[in-house]
Amino acid sequence: MNQEKLNQKYIRRCFTLAKKGYGKVNPNPYVGCVIVKNGKIIAEGWHHYFGGPHAEPNAISKAKQSLKGATLYCNLEPCCHTDKKTPPCTPLVISSGITKVVISTLDPNPKVAGKGVKQLRAAGIEVVTGVLEEEGNELNKFFFHSVKTGLPYVTVKIAQTLDGKINFETKNQTWITGAESKKYVHKLRSIYDAVLVGANTVKVDDPQLNVRLVKGRNPKKIIIDGRLSVPLTRKLFLNDDLADTYIFTSKNVSANKIKTLEKKSAKIYRLALNKNGQLSLKRILKILGKENINSVLVEGGNSTFTQFIENELFNEIIYLSAPKIFGTGLDAYDLKKRIVLDLYSAEKLGEDLKLIYKRK
Amino acid sequence: MNQEKLNQKYIRRCFTLAKKGYGKVNPNPYVGCVIVKNGKIIAEGWHHYFGGPHAEPNAISKAKQSLKGATLYCNLEPCCHTDKKTPPCTPLVISSGITKVVISTLDPNPKVAGKGVKQLRAAGIEVVTGVLEEEGNELNKFFFHSVKTGLPYVTVKIAQTLDGKINFETKNQTWITGAESKKYVHKLRSIYDAVLVGANTVKVDDPQLNVRLVKGRNPKKIIIDGRLSVPLTRKLFLNDDLADTYIFTSKNVSANKIKTLEKKSAKIYRLALNKNGQLSLKRILKILGKENINSVLVEGGNSTFTQFIENELFNEIIYLSAPKIFGTGLDAYDLKKRIVLDLYSAEKLGEDLKLIYKRK
Repeated sequence: MNQEKLNQKYIRRCFTLAKKGYGKVNPNPYVGCVIVKNGKIIAEGWHHYFGGPHAEPNAISKAKQSLKGATLYCNLEPCCHTDKKTPPCTPLVISSGITKVVISTLDPNPKVAGKGVKQLRAAGIEVVTGVLEEEGNELNKFFFHSVKTGLPYVTVKIAQTLDGKINFETKNQTWITGAESKKYVHKLRSIYDAVLVGANTVKVDDPQLNVRLVKGRNPKKIIIDGRLSVPLTRKLFLNDDLADTYIFTSKNVSANKIKTLEKKSAKIYRLALNKNGQLSLKRILKILGKENINSVLVEGGNSTFTQFIENELFNEIIYLSAPKIFGTGLDAYDLKKRIVLDLYSAEKLGEDLKLIYKRK
Repeated sequence: MNQEKLNQKYIRRCFTLAKKGYGKVNPNPYVGCVIVKNGKIIAEGWHHYFGGPHAEPNAISKAKQSLKGATLYCNLEPCCHTDKKTPPCTPLVISSGITKVVISTLDPNPKVAGKGVKQLRAAGIEVVTGVLEEEGNELNKFFFHSVKTGLPYVTVKIAQTLDGKINFETKNQTWITGAESKKYVHKLRSIYDAVLVGANTVKVDDPQLNVRLVKGRNPKKIIIDGRLSVPLTRKLFLNDDLADTYIFTSKNVSANKIKTLEKKSAKIYRLALNKNGQLSLKRILKILGKENINSVLVEGGNSTFTQFIENELFNEIIYLSAPKIFGTGLDAYDLKKRIVLDLYSAEKLGEDLKLIYKRK
């Protein structure tokens, strides 16, 4: 195997390790690290939980032999800034005796952004960057996007028929996709910081929006309901502790409902309605960004999909496409303009298709 | 490699050879044949053109050594019936000295249907059947379907947006898919016996329905136009020889137009309109079957798609899905009932997706 292939192999291992942090490290990035000496991995580490030690010290502390002449692989540029919970990683790498560092992506955080690499090079360490950079960017898309924009990464997830319907009727829920797709949605929920739905989806589908079909933590829940019209008898409100529930509504709404929800510690944001009688999604995303929610999975329904897509307030759309034609029914969205996307991936998911498109 | 893997390898080679007959052997099946002796391919053959010698005699005649103890691989059961253009293959195989025959699919033609295998076995030849049977069935889906039903195999090809639109406006054509998809459609045209469109597609899109972007022969053209409303200035009618053009219309239509078209040798069928003012597609497919057209690619538009799908007169639907959302525009079809399909395959085609669904 040539050096390029070897670099890719170890960076891939870093990706695998990094993913062990799914659902735990947000809003920090996913980072994995391996240390290689004489052609063998002698230590591995990853970022386990938000605020915990980084992948590099985790790996370095595990090595049972001298690191002199070793190579450190890390999917993200080692940090060098000090105004945070953990000490910077570059001094530790430099003092360890490691002579080469291989990185997939630079850290877009302006406090790091190439400065980590500079410090390593200044200390005489050889640094290779950009190995499997595209995959590295994909792995930390939530972190990169939120650091750059202050807004959460938004994925719109649409389960639809071949003719673009999300429901056969409007008053009752029709299940569109198969068992594999359902499981995949639960997997997504375990990774995204929060799931978001509109009032109508709460009313008609009465979803729980939690993780039941796979292992993993539940996401935060965001409900957009300008008129606070959802009945509090819905499953989402039955729990006694709603501290993980964010409700965006407007000023003139039922004080009683607000009281009941606040008693259960729900977070309620009362914003102004815009001229269309809707809440500003941009404003909502800004608030969520400040709340350290750096990824949002939008799960429905028609009106919510329409607003996110029409206003181009999304990063990707995941279609779970069922092998069905409904003929009539509720469209996924009603856009007044054309949108052109980039196909990112397409694969079978049981009887359905999972199609991922990115914003151009 | 074990014997099962070896069998698959040689049957795969038969498939490759068989496909050399694409667009040439219809309504006969695609057949390829390899002869293996002492672990080496010593001869290959395939069915070249309609009415020409079969794959087996083609291969047998090419062998430069004795076939004693050789194995013949053939994707289709060797024929044993005599009421056709070419002599039966089984006697030739038996007299050749070949001791083993490996087949993918049996011939559903009731004149063969297992009798070929029986004759071989009766002569002491070992016969293995069903190797890569699914692929073998897919390869000869046109032949198998038309032999069983007397009707052509119908594929509905729909280029649509993610919201199921086939056109942005109704009066002018909007191009939906990219260059790769266009090329693929021409490839399909070179394989299908005929392409079929409705009157509105001829009026609005003014298509040529021929093969320009790949090598291959042009398909026959079928136009469904109950009122014979298409202007004869459209590209499809400009050629002086329309012998490959089939026009289905009704009784009370312009005699002048009929005359002009018949002068150019167009085949015109004047059928009764049904109570919806439409021609019976089932009747049309029966006529096409009798005309030895055993595969039809339905290319549009909305009304034609709707009738084929609503009446379940199709075998598969190929969606060429563009990475676009139109919001408004012409739907691919307007069904009054639900249809459930089977996803057969999904792959990228340039910027688009090629999705193949089969009828359940």
